[in-house]
Amino acid sequence: MFIATTSAPVNIACIKYWGKRDTKLILPTNSSLSVTLDQDHLRSTTTSRADASFTKDRLWLNGVEEDIKPGGRMATCIAEMKRLRKELVENVDTSAPTLSTLFVHIASYNNFPTAAGLASSASGFAALTASLAALYALPSPPTELSLIARQGSGSACRSLMGGFVAWNAGTLDSGVDSHAVQIAAETHWPDIHALICVVSDTKKGTSSTSGMQRTVETSPLLQHRIKHVVPQRMKTISEAILAKDFDRFAEITMADSNQFHAVCLDTSPPIFYMNDVSRAIIAVIEEYNRVALLPENGGKRKAAYTYDAGPNAVIYAPAAHIKEIISLIAHFFPQQETFKDPFGLFGPNGIGTGSFAAGFNVNVAKTWETGAVKSLIHTKVGDGPRVLGQADSVLGQDGLPKSLQL
Amino acid sequence: MFIATTSAPVNIACIKYWGKRDTKLILPTNSSLSVTLDQDHLRSTTTSRADASFTKDRLWLNGVEEDIKPGGRMATCIAEMKRLRKELVENVDTSAPTLSTLFVHIASYNNFPTAAGLASSASGFAALTASLAALYALPSPPTELSLIARQGSGSACRSLMGGFVAWNAGTLDSGVDSHAVQIAAETHWPDIHALICVVSDTKKGTSSTSGMQRTVETSPLLQHRIKHVVPQRMKTISEAILAKDFDRFAEITMADSNQFHAVCLDTSPPIFYMNDVSRAIIAVIEEYNRVALLPENGGKRKAAYTYDAGPNAVIYAPAAHIKEIISLIAHFFPQQETFKDPFGLFGPNGIGTGSFAAGFNVNVAKTWETGAVKSLIHTKVGDGPRVLGQADSVLGQDGLPKSLQL
Repeated sequence: MFIATTSAPVNIACIKYWGKRDTKLILPTNSSLSVTLDQDHLRSTTTSRADASFTKDRLWLNGVEEDIKPGGRMATCIAEMKRLRKELVENVDTSAPTLSTLFVHIASYNNFPTAAGLASSASGFAALTASLAALYALPSPPTELSLIARQGSGSACRSLMGGFVAWNAGTLDSGVDSHAVQIAAETHWPDIHALICVVSDTKKGTSSTSGMQRTVETSPLLQHRIKHVVPQRMKTISEAILAKDFDRFAEITMADSNQFHAVCLDTSPPIFYMNDVSRAIIAVIEEYNRVALLPENGGKRKAAYTYDAGPNAVIYAPAAHIKEIISLIAHFFPQQETFKDPFGLFGPNGIGTGSFAAGFNVNVAKTWETGAVKSLIHTKVGDGPRVLGQADSVLGQDGLPKSLQL
Repeated sequence: MFIATTSAPVNIACIKYWGKRDTKLILPTNSSLSVTLDQDHLRSTTTSRADASFTKDRLWLNGVEEDIKPGGRMATCIAEMKRLRKELVENVDTSAPTLSTLFVHIASYNNFPTAAGLASSASGFAALTASLAALYALPSPPTELSLIARQGSGSACRSLMGGFVAWNAGTLDSGVDSHAVQIAAETHWPDIHALICVVSDTKKGTSSTSGMQRTVETSPLLQHRIKHVVPQRMKTISEAILAKDFDRFAEITMADSNQFHAVCLDTSPPIFYMNDVSRAIIAVIEEYNRVALLPENGGKRKAAYTYDAGPNAVIYAPAAHIKEIISLIAHFFPQQETFKDPFGLFGPNGIGTGSFAAGFNVNVAKTWETGAVKSLIHTKVGDGPRVLGQADSVLGQDGLPKSLQL
């Protein structure tokens, strides 16, 4: 039986991807950089199987079959992987099974609810690409595979590596230089933790696919960001990562999140992803950093917020501060759900009410109603895709997805 | 008795002023352009009196005495006006009373509540300048006086003229070329109406004085706006005004409001003035324009929102559409106060529930709780400062401010 299962991580960008120079190949207008989050907490798990009995390529997402449209993103990724199988394996070793000629069944599950508002396309397309690479026994390194995952969903290319990952925009029309590269492995700076604040939102936001092209077409400020701001920030944040300089990393991460939302606002009609709760979280973290930046407190930032195309905050922080930050957020945004405490920071009494550093101005935000921040997810920097064993397969013997509880 | 009373209007910018190149002289980093609103509805009324019995310069705002700090903005304006009196009147006509040597008492009242969140500094400093100009019988045209008002509050220089007024940034260090000029009088395009939506806000915003300098110091996007975007927009919107092209006027006005808030967001720490209610008003007006832009509906925008340094919306629209817009806003933002209907648009039954154009998507915003928009003020483009008679004086015979009910 030709079958392979992999899991792949979520990534959250510090330097944001917003705008395509080629919408079919998914080539971005600027480079971006992200932190890969730990698959122990958030992951997509995908099983791919090739079999002569299959009559067409099929794909199920969380147990529901997706329509693989000809020329669409899923079809492109599958076709590209079959092409690599043929070129790199079958053409080289004529004894290798000609899997490139067989149809595949692919099943993928996310272990986090869609309602969490986390972009699942990045981990999903990374897991798809990695599972087909394992099925096809490709010799390709992650950077090569990232070219394929990119054509499924741009930011998916960054989920093919662990740690701190850049997606170089590239300049070629073919897109062969628009791939991911690892700036530093998760083992270089394992101290980076992340707190995801899932924010309630009644309003359906603009999809990032259509939103980013509207920005490309209408924002006068975007071109300045692309040409002059991002190149400098890519360089500086890479240096900060290599030097494990959290203060600098935080400064750039927050500035770039805000600039991404600024160019959204500079779009016609304007695009808003953050709401009043998102802004209150910013106010709390800015105040937390203001106190931390006082000379008597060490003079360095202790947290960095960042927001993708939605109201959820992701707060990066060194491990030493994350407990304090969780308490701080839970103070202003009381939690209904019990905090899942994967690192065992809190005792049986839970988060508690927290305490404030001397000089912290509690009036920067009001205490919100319970549920304004629906849940808090604590995780950390993690590794790239993992090849799993048969026991982890999410496709059954019958070639159909297993029934899994999410 | 040497006394003069004037009233001066509020202005609301279409091309926003944000950033100073000289904080003492109040020289801006970019030119701006505004619509002067009708003093019949919103105004500052100021009486200035010079008398040999006065022992110091004194000023009362809404009946409360202000401290005229040496070297401060009020002291600068008063000193500059005395200088002009001496140079342009007393030095020329030696029989003229030497009012420049006398202390003044100045009383100023706004006819709109501070809680309305309207910037009163523009109308206030314009009325102060205009009343001293009347007291001192200065021959100076409004452009000359705008140089003085500008040193009180930058945007006040634009309130010295009616209609559509540009404030040219100028390039000289002395600031003598940084003054207001009238692009078109209110009589050129009297069709422009305005609806002010006063939005509740619990959070105290960043003051514009400190906020704009933080943007100058930290926003990478502001420089692009200053150098490349605003000059083009000043030209284009001036042309639109002269051509009475509301569609173009609206397009630029909304884009520039959004870009101003974008550079605020690009500031470190970020500055937010709009809240979820502000954004919902944007969504409603964008949808209203989307329908209006359909070829079968004429293909032209019918309204333009703009936001200053706060959550209030000002909606500009041709007179023909303003009734529909008031109903639209009142539908999504139910009013507690009875609408003051200065143009008699509605009958005794009030605003009513309104109706929607075919194809209007009512789901672009929810129906908010009563009071989310506290009140609606309907006004229109209006004239520059008016010299009033003794009957309108807000200083009593005793040289102290009259007790007025606001």
